[in-house]
Amino acid sequence: MHLVVSYYCTNGMSNLISRENTKVPEPTLRRLPWYLSNVKLLKQKGEQFISSTQISKEINIDASQIAKDLSYVNISGRTRVGYEIDRLIEVLEDFLGFTKTHKAFLFGVGSLGGALLQDSGLSHFGLQIVAAFDIKPELVGTSIGGIPIYHSDEFTARMKEYDVNIGVLTVPIQIAQQITDSMVEGGIKAVWNFTPFRIRVSEHIVVQNTSLYAHLAVMFNRLNLNGEQK
Amino acid sequence: MHLVVSYYCTNGMSNLISRENTKVPEPTLRRLPWYLSNVKLLKQKGEQFISSTQISKEINIDASQIAKDLSYVNISGRTRVGYEIDRLIEVLEDFLGFTKTHKAFLFGVGSLGGALLQDSGLSHFGLQIVAAFDIKPELVGTSIGGIPIYHSDEFTARMKEYDVNIGVLTVPIQIAQQITDSMVEGGIKAVWNFTPFRIRVSEHIVVQNTSLYAHLAVMFNRLNLNGEQK
Repeated sequence: MHLVVSYYCTNGMSNLISRENTKVPEPTLRRLPWYLSNVKLLKQKGEQFISSTQISKEINIDASQIAKDLSYVNISGRTRVGYEIDRLIEVLEDFLGFTKTHKAFLFGVGSLGGALLQDSGLSHFGLQIVAAFDIKPELVGTSIGGIPIYHSDEFTARMKEYDVNIGVLTVPIQIAQQITDSMVEGGIKAVWNFTPFRIRVSEHIVVQNTSLYAHLAVMFNRLNLNGEQK
Repeated sequence: MHLVVSYYCTNGMSNLISRENTKVPEPTLRRLPWYLSNVKLLKQKGEQFISSTQISKEINIDASQIAKDLSYVNISGRTRVGYEIDRLIEVLEDFLGFTKTHKAFLFGVGSLGGALLQDSGLSHFGLQIVAAFDIKPELVGTSIGGIPIYHSDEFTARMKEYDVNIGVLTVPIQIAQQITDSMVEGGIKAVWNFTPFRIRVSEHIVVQNTSLYAHLAVMFNRLNLNGEQK
């Protein structure tokens, strides 16, 4: 669908790496955006080349781990010089899918759903929410941040209108599974689940869980633990 | 600070579990909210007792894993009957810190920061953002969702006014480290980092990273992989 197999040649070294059959480990995928933001910052400071050792110093991750993570991305560095920063940013953004627009529907315009509709930052990272669904009469027919809110009954019809394969799930837990089922039945291929409910889907559907509440629980617990130790 | 050591006795079985010295593993802390939301749902359906086997069937996690996770929480189940639902909800919410109000400051009222200020749902899980900081003249002195926005220079003074130990970080990556440093210097004990930047703090400071962009990267990658396999 969208996999870069690039030929990159620097200083006599050449690499043709095609890893389209390799499943990139999730921890690697989560670390790559760290490298990206760090490298962007160094570019702003006027740097042109960066080595994994330098990145390592900046963000306190083992240099060998960084080199290993970057081996999934189609870029090779020059010995003693490192990676060309412009090229690394370009390749990372492309690899992470941030340069392509992925259209999404949002389900459930409650407090969090409404907040996400207003977060225009998501579009800078490749996610464009094109429409939202809810059943509340006071919401249906209105829009938030320019994004129209339709009645949930219209979902199937709107799937034909928009070219969407991602669903953002921000409904109450009581209906999380039911809405997921209807999303998938309607043709959604990936669910970004913000509810604290563990939804079940068939194997070929991608689920990304982002429960802010689970993260809060971890933070509260660690905070209390530190308090105890004093 | 806030650790429950409860004595719970059912049906002749008794348990006095005091695990305040045990660090609960992060995966456990992330799974507990799943159990909580599931058990809440079963309560709404009229159930009074629940076993780990039943939870297991609902959310597709091994029953032994669930029992192990719940062993960190101060509750014991009855043989063949399971956990009393009301009690389990109460104990889990308390254990996860959702019943206590944790006050927080938010730093950086951009797109995501502004969205989080409008998400009243956080307060139902124990996080109350009491003030926000930014430097933009058009923001300073205004409020979003009833939460006042102060100039960043006022942070130290406001720390004395509010009883806050959590900082929500939603600033641009260029200043993520600098703002973190001043937060910690001002007395913040835990940083909820929404930026894609890996901040560095001293050992006794809690950092919870929630990078929506990292989660997007994982989702996009898996989605493309599924597309490839077809």
